[in-house]
Amino acid sequence: MASSDTLQRRGLMLILSSPSGAGKTTISRMLLEHDGEIRLSVSATTRPIRPGEVDGRDYHFVTQAVFDRMVEEGEFLEWATVFGHSYGTPKAQVKAGIREGQDFLFDIDWQGTQQLYQKMETDVVRVFLLPPSIDELRRRLTGRGTDSAEVIAARMERARAEISHWDGYDYVVVNDDVQACFEKVCEILHAERMKRARQTGLIGFVRELMKD
Amino acid sequence: MASSDTLQRRGLMLILSSPSGAGKTTISRMLLEHDGEIRLSVSATTRPIRPGEVDGRDYHFVTQAVFDRMVEEGEFLEWATVFGHSYGTPKAQVKAGIREGQDFLFDIDWQGTQQLYQKMETDVVRVFLLPPSIDELRRRLTGRGTDSAEVIAARMERARAEISHWDGYDYVVVNDDVQACFEKVCEILHAERMKRARQTGLIGFVRELMKD
Repeated sequence: MASSDTLQRRGLMLILSSPSGAGKTTISRMLLEHDGEIRLSVSATTRPIRPGEVDGRDYHFVTQAVFDRMVEEGEFLEWATVFGHSYGTPKAQVKAGIREGQDFLFDIDWQGTQQLYQKMETDVVRVFLLPPSIDELRRRLTGRGTDSAEVIAARMERARAEISHWDGYDYVVVNDDVQACFEKVCEILHAERMKRARQTGLIGFVRELMKD
Repeated sequence: MASSDTLQRRGLMLILSSPSGAGKTTISRMLLEHDGEIRLSVSATTRPIRPGEVDGRDYHFVTQAVFDRMVEEGEFLEWATVFGHSYGTPKAQVKAGIREGQDFLFDIDWQGTQQLYQKMETDVVRVFLLPPSIDELRRRLTGRGTDSAEVIAARMERARAEISHWDGYDYVVVNDDVQACFEKVCEILHAERMKRARQTGLIGFVRELMKD
């Protein structure tokens, strides 16, 4: 007897993008906590290791020279430089995991999404989270009320710049309630796992059904 | 405040196919009972009306001459002749419904699926249900044990012929448990509703988010 949950399948890459303040970090944390089949890929970075971090678990900590060589040799699925430090997703780790049915979660912006999509098109599932209203977004970005009007305006500007790329995603979920939004993202993840093209075990299973 | 459930969206056409004995009829009935946004399209047919049936509710009962004219004028999304009677899905009804956000369920075989897909590609979601094993399929097709070995063998042959087309579907679900299978089909339906391309209301919603 077979079940959709036990047949061998190819893993997928779930990309969650959203403007800051739309709940991406919370939803990502909930997914990693509650779904046993998805995990973060371990990025390589040039930023210094911080107390409590473990090399190879939190990041692969590398020198700029090593990072540059990896970029040159095409070893990254996507990479970016933020505040002077470089971060990248090593290709080999993700490709090997996907072959074995491991799903990976990516909490990245639209530019990283484009890089991943160009390289791994059929393995990528792109989900964009939107805030329920502009007032709610402003409320979430205002924080504890200790920031200046300029700082908040700059955050709103960045959020809007990110939102303007919503149409480069496969799915869009409006996050008006964290639990409901989480359940919707889970439904997308579960449905995508049932895509015929990912269920590599079906070929052998159907062969069994056809022989007598 | 917007929510993913209240934004205007384009409807979809959910196709459920399976060999006889894999649970398609049961799952279809459960969907129609529990999901308020999906319904069957009303087919046109040349077969005589039966007691209790209502013209325009159960079927559009038409003469063979009318049916043939509809075929000629391309008014069907798909049609077929079974045991001397013709059945077809009128295009106008489905197209109008989809524009207004109505989902339609189609309980059809792989040939009907191909016809629908050719005409309405982006609106179609194709789901194939498989039995959990060949023994379980045989058990379900054996019925109450009153049928001859020949009748059962012919049913198995038809089931296998249908199964051989499993790879023309977007999703495959193994039906090893009716409730679990129903929930999986619901997850596929819910996820497909969240596809960016179907959420026509997002364009106006994002415009609101972008203006200050």
